[in-house]
Amino acid sequence: MLKKIFALSLVIVIALSGISSAEILAGPGIAVANTKDGKIQGYIRNGIFTYHGVPYADAELFMPPTKLSSWDGVRMAVTYGAQSPQDTSRAGDMFPNHWYWPHWEPRNYQQDNNCLNLNIWTPALDDAKRPVMIWLHGGGFMAGASAVEDAYDGENLARTGNVVVVSVNHRLNVLGFLDLSAYGEEYKYSGNLGMLDIVAALEWVKENISAFGGNPDNVTLFGQSGGGAKILTLMAMPKAAGLFHKVIEQSGAVDLMGITLPRQDATRRIAELTLSNLGVSDVKELKNIPYEKLNDAANKAMRQAISEGCKYFSWSPVADGECVTGDPVAGGFTEYSKNIPMMAGSVLNEWVTMPLLSDMARTQSDNKNYWTAEQVKAKLAEKYGDKAEAITSAFLKAYPNKKPADALYVDTRIRSGALKTLNAKSSQKGAPVYAYVFTWETPIMGGFAMSYHCSELPFVFNNIAITEMATGGGEKAQALADKMSGAWVEFARTGNPGWEAYTTQNGATMIFDDESALRYHHDDELMKLLTE
Amino acid sequence: MLKKIFALSLVIVIALSGISSAEILAGPGIAVANTKDGKIQGYIRNGIFTYHGVPYADAELFMPPTKLSSWDGVRMAVTYGAQSPQDTSRAGDMFPNHWYWPHWEPRNYQQDNNCLNLNIWTPALDDAKRPVMIWLHGGGFMAGASAVEDAYDGENLARTGNVVVVSVNHRLNVLGFLDLSAYGEEYKYSGNLGMLDIVAALEWVKENISAFGGNPDNVTLFGQSGGGAKILTLMAMPKAAGLFHKVIEQSGAVDLMGITLPRQDATRRIAELTLSNLGVSDVKELKNIPYEKLNDAANKAMRQAISEGCKYFSWSPVADGECVTGDPVAGGFTEYSKNIPMMAGSVLNEWVTMPLLSDMARTQSDNKNYWTAEQVKAKLAEKYGDKAEAITSAFLKAYPNKKPADALYVDTRIRSGALKTLNAKSSQKGAPVYAYVFTWETPIMGGFAMSYHCSELPFVFNNIAITEMATGGGEKAQALADKMSGAWVEFARTGNPGWEAYTTQNGATMIFDDESALRYHHDDELMKLLTE
Repeated sequence: MLKKIFALSLVIVIALSGISSAEILAGPGIAVANTKDGKIQGYIRNGIFTYHGVPYADAELFMPPTKLSSWDGVRMAVTYGAQSPQDTSRAGDMFPNHWYWPHWEPRNYQQDNNCLNLNIWTPALDDAKRPVMIWLHGGGFMAGASAVEDAYDGENLARTGNVVVVSVNHRLNVLGFLDLSAYGEEYKYSGNLGMLDIVAALEWVKENISAFGGNPDNVTLFGQSGGGAKILTLMAMPKAAGLFHKVIEQSGAVDLMGITLPRQDATRRIAELTLSNLGVSDVKELKNIPYEKLNDAANKAMRQAISEGCKYFSWSPVADGECVTGDPVAGGFTEYSKNIPMMAGSVLNEWVTMPLLSDMARTQSDNKNYWTAEQVKAKLAEKYGDKAEAITSAFLKAYPNKKPADALYVDTRIRSGALKTLNAKSSQKGAPVYAYVFTWETPIMGGFAMSYHCSELPFVFNNIAITEMATGGGEKAQALADKMSGAWVEFARTGNPGWEAYTTQNGATMIFDDESALRYHHDDELMKLLTE
Repeated sequence: MLKKIFALSLVIVIALSGISSAEILAGPGIAVANTKDGKIQGYIRNGIFTYHGVPYADAELFMPPTKLSSWDGVRMAVTYGAQSPQDTSRAGDMFPNHWYWPHWEPRNYQQDNNCLNLNIWTPALDDAKRPVMIWLHGGGFMAGASAVEDAYDGENLARTGNVVVVSVNHRLNVLGFLDLSAYGEEYKYSGNLGMLDIVAALEWVKENISAFGGNPDNVTLFGQSGGGAKILTLMAMPKAAGLFHKVIEQSGAVDLMGITLPRQDATRRIAELTLSNLGVSDVKELKNIPYEKLNDAANKAMRQAISEGCKYFSWSPVADGECVTGDPVAGGFTEYSKNIPMMAGSVLNEWVTMPLLSDMARTQSDNKNYWTAEQVKAKLAEKYGDKAEAITSAFLKAYPNKKPADALYVDTRIRSGALKTLNAKSSQKGAPVYAYVFTWETPIMGGFAMSYHCSELPFVFNNIAITEMATGGGEKAQALADKMSGAWVEFARTGNPGWEAYTTQNGATMIFDDESALRYHHDDELMKLLTE
């Protein structure tokens, strides 16, 4: 009876108010933590000690990060810090109509080259030595920020997983990766500044995280899309050795790494063209150019270099052979990576359903979930020709809970990259490797977007309740979020997410959906058919 | 017993989860509404029909708004629309250190001159003819947007008040108010474009809001700071007559209206200097200048004009005698305003406590709430000299629930302006006028920020639960939010918020705090002492 009343009143609370106030504790002496550089003050929200915009280093234009000056007294860390300059006003150009939906709506903060700050969420400032999970945001090496998406909020993961969550801002695009090394020794590392920023953040965590209840000897990096590419790059950076102990690669655009880690001839050519576009002969003048102008000139230079045949995709670190040794997927993982357990995976549809967003009004009712069997058959035949039957059959063998129409939208690019990464890493015969594919279909708007690039983020962060426009909220989404965030935390804690390790031989892969299951070589035939 | 269990479980729900999922309904055929131009589709969140980014007109650079082209099929209205271009990257410059706290953190969206869009929250698409409440955002006439602050979200007000809430984006700063009228007939109204945009939005509401369950004949404008100034300007625009029926002025910077409604000699001089700063001789070239360059040149021109002695404060409409007849507070309200009931008020501290934000680490423990009686006495004597005792006594008479130290931080500028506005409007002897002062002190961070400019917004919108960093959340804040949002709704519904109307003779003013009370001429003596 009591239980029933409780359940009823809970429903009433939600139904009547749709809201619940968080408990905030903030004030003198509350949530004050010691760092090596000085005291910082955050606040406690729903029991989680929260710090936003904690500086971890200083950055001058085109120069490597430098140590912070220490401070007296207490420094406030209650608002998100500056993010790397970037062109947020044109973010919508990528997808002309409503790109942001069902993706969630972005928050953008003040922009500054000196954006070297991080955020921390922890259950307590004690000696419990919790696993530390460091989030590296997506947006290629060009855009994004640690707090740009509601899904990135670390409070719920810190509480439900009893872990310390950290997320990092660092330099991006022309400010993080313009390779001026041809113009003087002081610019030697300028093509990798954004990565050196992240290394500085990892060093800060190593030095300071024990004051926040975290274990500096158990640090897991997790990142999605560009964040995944950053993690692979870190695994090719000798300076990062020892600063992290486990990695989770989510939809890292890994099959592009051969291009996204360009060589120095390409990156130096982009710098040369940038100077030429600006009419600047003395590299020292660069720092007087307003960001917008610099960014425009450099983006133009990038396009020019690509049209000249430079192997370059978009802003990215440079494999200079010293700071970054080379692409680990194409060229082999560094020796120090051998003992780092890895989890890697992708989502079923990634970018494939993105074009459907350009006409949501139509596609939400004119989509695979509404077509007749005949229509589906015709579309499969149109897309796959005489392979249609074989592909459909292989698809349903791979994903038995899906429908034939779903075979029209399978990502192969990022899935191939994930397989390459998993195989390359497991071939080291070191720490175990774990594989997953996320296939959950968002029910929002007729379900047309399926499991799109970024769609796993609310689940990984256990943030269904604050990103419900991306998932529709509801019990099923929450159950899957509990399962996935739990696996992420378990991997961070022990190096094992709770299922059999992947090898090239066994092909063991966790499929995350309303009914999750471990499968073996589940999509071998499908991938072969789709990519041959 | 049941009641007790319910209360207990409510506390547990909040304490254990700190979160609650919203219910989202979104998909084909759901929340599709008819506008005169075509169908739009939103979504239903916690029972409230929600539309973001609904276009109400089109805008070409420096030209008045034009009618939308109609469309076939269904247009999506599920993400916030573009906001007026503005320099968000430097928003923090106004207050160098953590200006955003205890203010909430801003959301910024894509920027575009064609930003003429609005948002709607309504309980149903029926014929109930609910009161319509249109929110005009703050940020002077220079910055801000309809969705820049979490407090502006209309869902909770729409549900708890059973009203239709609308919020509006329009052109700002150089794009909304550069007076090019000296350069050709087509630019005649260019100094008032931002206001003409708002008039177009009001026309859209008049034509369309009945399809959203709203009453086009019962429209209340409410706005704070710059939003209040926009409302006063609308009351001086013949074109706006009949488009709204009640107004709520919250901390509108009203004593500055004599400056914020400049004359055409000043605004034309700014345009002249802008062209000169850009080295542009043909006004038609202006539209080819990138926004950042244009904005910089115009801001420089504004400073130059002010240094020449132009009566100008910051970007604002121009009293051209036709489009805008003149400042209603200084020059008298238009005849058509006579039958428009008004509520007007301010908050106790407004900008006075803002400088304390620059050293939060210190002021949260070294503030009025921590000082000894001797320290307070010394500070009062230092600030007010031989008037200290009289001011303290008058202050405690005005605000008997406050402490002597609070007398150090009384806003007089915006309170004086509110009184001028109330007196000018009530002297029309038309519809009634209602007065309030909000004196609630946020407990966050030692309470030093008190009731700062913007601090009433979460209460007015009944949004305590989503802005808890501004108020600390909690039952007391929610009780006051229920009371204030209820009064706002009651005023919108009936033209009477539930207390005695203000007259210059009675000085009736509602004091909003944990214990609210109607007072008469409560601060006459205090204001006299502080402003003489």
